[in-house]
Amino acid sequence: MGGDQYFDSYGDINVHRLMLEDAPRTLAYKQALESLGDQIRGKVVLDVGAGTGILSLFAAKCGASRVYAVEASDIAAHTKEVVSENMLDGVIKVLQCKVEDADIGEKVDVIVSEWMGFYLFHESMLDSVLYARDRWLKPGGLILPRTAKLYASPINMEKHCNDRFGFWTDVYGFSMQTFIAAEAQAMLRAPVIEQVAKEMLLSEPQLVKEVDCATAKQEDLRSFTQDLKFTARKEGICHGFCFWFVCQFENGVTLSTAPSKPQTHWKQATVMLPEMLQSIPDKVRFDCKVGFVQSKGNERQYQITLEM
Amino acid sequence: MGGDQYFDSYGDINVHRLMLEDAPRTLAYKQALESLGDQIRGKVVLDVGAGTGILSLFAAKCGASRVYAVEASDIAAHTKEVVSENMLDGVIKVLQCKVEDADIGEKVDVIVSEWMGFYLFHESMLDSVLYARDRWLKPGGLILPRTAKLYASPINMEKHCNDRFGFWTDVYGFSMQTFIAAEAQAMLRAPVIEQVAKEMLLSEPQLVKEVDCATAKQEDLRSFTQDLKFTARKEGICHGFCFWFVCQFENGVTLSTAPSKPQTHWKQATVMLPEMLQSIPDKVRFDCKVGFVQSKGNERQYQITLEM
Repeated sequence: MGGDQYFDSYGDINVHRLMLEDAPRTLAYKQALESLGDQIRGKVVLDVGAGTGILSLFAAKCGASRVYAVEASDIAAHTKEVVSENMLDGVIKVLQCKVEDADIGEKVDVIVSEWMGFYLFHESMLDSVLYARDRWLKPGGLILPRTAKLYASPINMEKHCNDRFGFWTDVYGFSMQTFIAAEAQAMLRAPVIEQVAKEMLLSEPQLVKEVDCATAKQEDLRSFTQDLKFTARKEGICHGFCFWFVCQFENGVTLSTAPSKPQTHWKQATVMLPEMLQSIPDKVRFDCKVGFVQSKGNERQYQITLEM
Repeated sequence: MGGDQYFDSYGDINVHRLMLEDAPRTLAYKQALESLGDQIRGKVVLDVGAGTGILSLFAAKCGASRVYAVEASDIAAHTKEVVSENMLDGVIKVLQCKVEDADIGEKVDVIVSEWMGFYLFHESMLDSVLYARDRWLKPGGLILPRTAKLYASPINMEKHCNDRFGFWTDVYGFSMQTFIAAEAQAMLRAPVIEQVAKEMLLSEPQLVKEVDCATAKQEDLRSFTQDLKFTARKEGICHGFCFWFVCQFENGVTLSTAPSKPQTHWKQATVMLPEMLQSIPDKVRFDCKVGFVQSKGNERQYQITLEM
């Protein structure tokens, strides 16, 4: 019997590699920064949660005169090495601290951050980005991404359920259906993070929440609800609601994690319903109130609620 | 930025599914039990670390009159359900406890256990199996598997190193070689668990350790060393030593995790050397002393040492 804890020592590097290899993610930032032209050449940039430093490197390559790469975790020692390897010590200053504690002695022209989590808000660093904006961004300065929109749609998860549940009905000739109940409960406790096909969506997506990073306030994100009205467009069973997000950068550059787009490491997040609903095209409506509430004590966690 | 801790709630079920879906593993036990004939029909069986209960189910199906399924973790509640689903409550008795604390009021004819860990000994339950044998196994009783043999061979890991290191030499046009050093250090701290191709082996395998479960003593497994002598058979670089194991059951049934055999969830474990060696067929010898030492305080952990 093997154990997963065995792999802990490789974990951190692998997570960063996974994010770098997520081309839709990384290239959206690259293109967005390259599109800025004179809005980044000779300017001061702040990278919130720099990780390996890739966004800071892009910014420096685009001609930023100074980049503050703020990273709280121990990877910051490697980030400094990366900067030296690329002979950008004169441009990029790596600060190992929380952004709230960062010693940045000037105002900045651009804030760039890859702060998005699963279903946009899970484990997100948005609070830190808004803090940095209020403290250091010059009036009229840019934030990358500028907006983030969270979408939802009712979804048929038959294939996913069959894959997860079917195995337990015949295990080398034995029945282990108790694990179906256990899996179903696990699926109700936390969203299912899995790439879904757009054919599984039962209605047109609706906007759940739009965050304008230039104007959003932390207190507006503590908790919010949204009434959503979906008209069924496909026949089938509705198992829950699928969530994904789309980020908009300057000059039309977009990072979309929608089911119709190439897979990213965020995939999509599906909140399962305790009971299945029947979808009949144009006849059934799936109206619900979605709520997001930040956890007390861990502001990076959100509780999602769904009222039908 | 996503986080792995998110998946914790599915973790336990998935580990058990992974082990069940490991067909070479599960079918070896099935075949071994089925091969026993009258040696299991009407007999009493003890399953040490029963997990989902699959080995107990096999034993009951083969006609055991009584099966004690001992499982310490909380999965035991599900194991009981599984037994009921298959209407074997009259045969299989699930005990949620460590085997050392199990209340088994009789001697048993057969002990079955899937106790093997990565490189056989990592996180293994062998100590518990030997304890159960000494306390409950009838004289002449059977233990499945009967023997386990650990093998080693010098190995060329060029492809693995290129896969892991190459990425960092050009990350969207930037150099991140600091992570090559970090990965190399991680590889020296703990064995690399990965399926290797038999073509990567540089010499004939040598036996490191044989455990005869019928006679082995716990104290013999606290620590042991073995001198190994390999003659190079292939040209190339030697990056380390690859370890795998083979279990022998009654009636010729074998479970092999060798590189030449179908992949199992154990894959193989490769201990990397701090310096690369040159392999020249029939001219170079890779002689070494391999040591295994159980950790104080966590007997399921072993420290592997290699002296060239």
